[in-house]
Amino acid sequence: TCKQKEDISGWVRSIRSQKSNLFLHLNDGSSLQSLQVVASPELNDPSLTFGSAVEVTGVLKKSPHRNQPVELEADQIHVVGECNPVDFPFKTKERHSLEYIRQFPHLRCRTNAFSSLLRVRSEATTAIHSYFKENGFVQIHTPVITSNDCEGAGELFQVEVEGENFFSVPAYLTVSGQLHLEVMSGAFSRVYTFGPTFRAENSQSRRHLAEFHMVEAEVSFTESLEDLTKVMEDMFRSATEHVLAHCAEDVDLFHKHVTPGHRNAVDFMLKERFPLYINFSSSFSQWGCDLQTEHEKYLVKHCGNIPVFVTDYPYDLKPFYARDNKDHPRHSAAAVDLLVPGVGELCGGSLREERLDLLRARLEEVGLEDTYSWYLDLRRFGSVPHGGFGLGFERYLQCILGVDSIKDVIPFPRFSHSCPL
Amino acid sequence: TCKQKEDISGWVRSIRSQKSNLFLHLNDGSSLQSLQVVASPELNDPSLTFGSAVEVTGVLKKSPHRNQPVELEADQIHVVGECNPVDFPFKTKERHSLEYIRQFPHLRCRTNAFSSLLRVRSEATTAIHSYFKENGFVQIHTPVITSNDCEGAGELFQVEVEGENFFSVPAYLTVSGQLHLEVMSGAFSRVYTFGPTFRAENSQSRRHLAEFHMVEAEVSFTESLEDLTKVMEDMFRSATEHVLAHCAEDVDLFHKHVTPGHRNAVDFMLKERFPLYINFSSSFSQWGCDLQTEHEKYLVKHCGNIPVFVTDYPYDLKPFYARDNKDHPRHSAAAVDLLVPGVGELCGGSLREERLDLLRARLEEVGLEDTYSWYLDLRRFGSVPHGGFGLGFERYLQCILGVDSIKDVIPFPRFSHSCPL
Repeated sequence: TCKQKEDISGWVRSIRSQKSNLFLHLNDGSSLQSLQVVASPELNDPSLTFGSAVEVTGVLKKSPHRNQPVELEADQIHVVGECNPVDFPFKTKERHSLEYIRQFPHLRCRTNAFSSLLRVRSEATTAIHSYFKENGFVQIHTPVITSNDCEGAGELFQVEVEGENFFSVPAYLTVSGQLHLEVMSGAFSRVYTFGPTFRAENSQSRRHLAEFHMVEAEVSFTESLEDLTKVMEDMFRSATEHVLAHCAEDVDLFHKHVTPGHRNAVDFMLKERFPLYINFSSSFSQWGCDLQTEHEKYLVKHCGNIPVFVTDYPYDLKPFYARDNKDHPRHSAAAVDLLVPGVGELCGGSLREERLDLLRARLEEVGLEDTYSWYLDLRRFGSVPHGGFGLGFERYLQCILGVDSIKDVIPFPRFSHSCPL
Repeated sequence: TCKQKEDISGWVRSIRSQKSNLFLHLNDGSSLQSLQVVASPELNDPSLTFGSAVEVTGVLKKSPHRNQPVELEADQIHVVGECNPVDFPFKTKERHSLEYIRQFPHLRCRTNAFSSLLRVRSEATTAIHSYFKENGFVQIHTPVITSNDCEGAGELFQVEVEGENFFSVPAYLTVSGQLHLEVMSGAFSRVYTFGPTFRAENSQSRRHLAEFHMVEAEVSFTESLEDLTKVMEDMFRSATEHVLAHCAEDVDLFHKHVTPGHRNAVDFMLKERFPLYINFSSSFSQWGCDLQTEHEKYLVKHCGNIPVFVTDYPYDLKPFYARDNKDHPRHSAAAVDLLVPGVGELCGGSLREERLDLLRARLEEVGLEDTYSWYLDLRRFGSVPHGGFGLGFERYLQCILGVDSIKDVIPFPRFSHSCPL
């Protein structure tokens, strides 16, 4: 039994004053579990309230309670930061909804639910980096500011300095790091990027944000979609197993209190290899129309509420870089989406058109051969068959935690008409 | 001796045709070292040129050469992507300068120097994440788009959608994740972020970019700058040792061919703890003037070309959040910079003003108490003494590799009048 004095700091998560003892729960953000502090009732103080920050001096002892290894026997408690319980929007012992706490973007990390979310998010980030590292991928920081408007999508944020023509060309926030990753696919067999991505969508959907995180990977020397679906599935599996193992307590908070029963759904998803490849053409009679949210939902449900890969989309639905399957020229493209229960599209990927003549022809038709002359260069010099995909990181968190709104799985959500702080 | 056939793909880095043998060096981006392919001269082909992509079938054998464990005895060579040696900007056996290859942002990863750079960058990223993970920091994805113009600095990029008022408020690209990390410092003892950061500087300096990467950390429950300098130094040391150990070959390319002798400089920096705390006030007689590049250079040189911490800056030079030292109220602030040889300022940090009354007074003076009411809230509810710092990741790479221009340590440099791709 060590009698050495310890100084321990944290925020007060609960206070219980009994006749002979004062009990505090102190949390420093390192885990969901708080440290129990036991003190004499004389150390109580009006400023010792839920949410206040304290420094406690005392001796760590083995706890008599089963669910905590140690407790702190305090002989000094110093309130370093008060917290007026009337003004503080969170109340002790109340379980606030995710929607309620979302109103306080600068304070919501002080709730159990959101601090758990942030630890899970941090751990999931680590897990994804580990997966790629262990599988020989080189991480590339693709740029946020870009002069290419990628797929000609209209949903672009422009970047400007007032009164200046800073970059001499129109510049935008990236909607995908893919084309920049493809540059790297001319020298590295396996590359990935994990960073912020942007869409100026006016949607207020529970699955869309103006700023979100995307994991994107690109694999060279492959001519098969299966090489890509293998990476998608292995990454999903490896990250999820890592998070379940390393963040059990935090994940449980969601699986028990936020979406009761969701753990079963996750275990079910992981049970077997994602077995189903649904060929797009066999799924829907109306060739040429893209899948709508309701189709996605139907497909996932139809397959037994497990993740499902949908492959070989109509050629005209896919951007210029998607590879022609040549089963019927310009009929279908070698593209694949991963749909998951509750969320819908989690990943989208394709083989890229590596054949110079086919790519040039397609770009010429839309008058973009000059804009993308650099991209055509990649096919002029040592072009290789390659492909890649992107995963929406927030949707991934929604999927494994069972969180309904994407706004509740990101520290500072940005969407139309909302950019506080 | 295994006789199994292997299919190996890569890009041709050299070709040597002898009477009895054809030798190729094949590189797939996984390391600087290429695989030697030995084939019969009949397998030579005009399309087998420097930079072309090939698939080779053959048997891996123990190599008779000391510096390569294996070589591939080929019986088939298939050129999958040709590379016209006249048009390709890089020539076999030529050593192109970093400045020359920078002209080809979409192709420069195909040179030895830049592919080494990218592997080092990837490994350094891993090393920094590992350091924080091992030391109990939670990773936070701070937002890129923000409505706070932070230090009132003029160097802001605005984010817009043409003809819309997308966010209802003016929105900018972040110049620092600090204030968002400070939000998290109200619930986590240790947090960090590692992501893109932006400055609309018109500078064409060798140390500035419009888009760069910053590592920022924030530590709660500290009242000493030494707690921060310890994290800065430990991170620098741990990342550098990791990179030197895991990327030896790639680092050597720079230390031998790009900046000959730089390895000694790096070893010298790591030899002893960064010993010198120069108190700003004792360094320069003109109190109230900031350090200029030439002062920084002088200081580093004066201290023997090792990293040096400069502390306790004039209060008025520092932003509103810097903590008043109270040695003489509003005289000096608890701020610290880390200066390193060749690069100058690598890190900047400070203790943050956690006292509500002092912070409010300072914000009121500049009329910002409403804009920053959320930030004041952090001091209203469970405020704790805390501090943090930011490290410029590209400058860090310049420092350990000895690379003169910051444009040569980032995949896609963005600066004024330059945003290709």
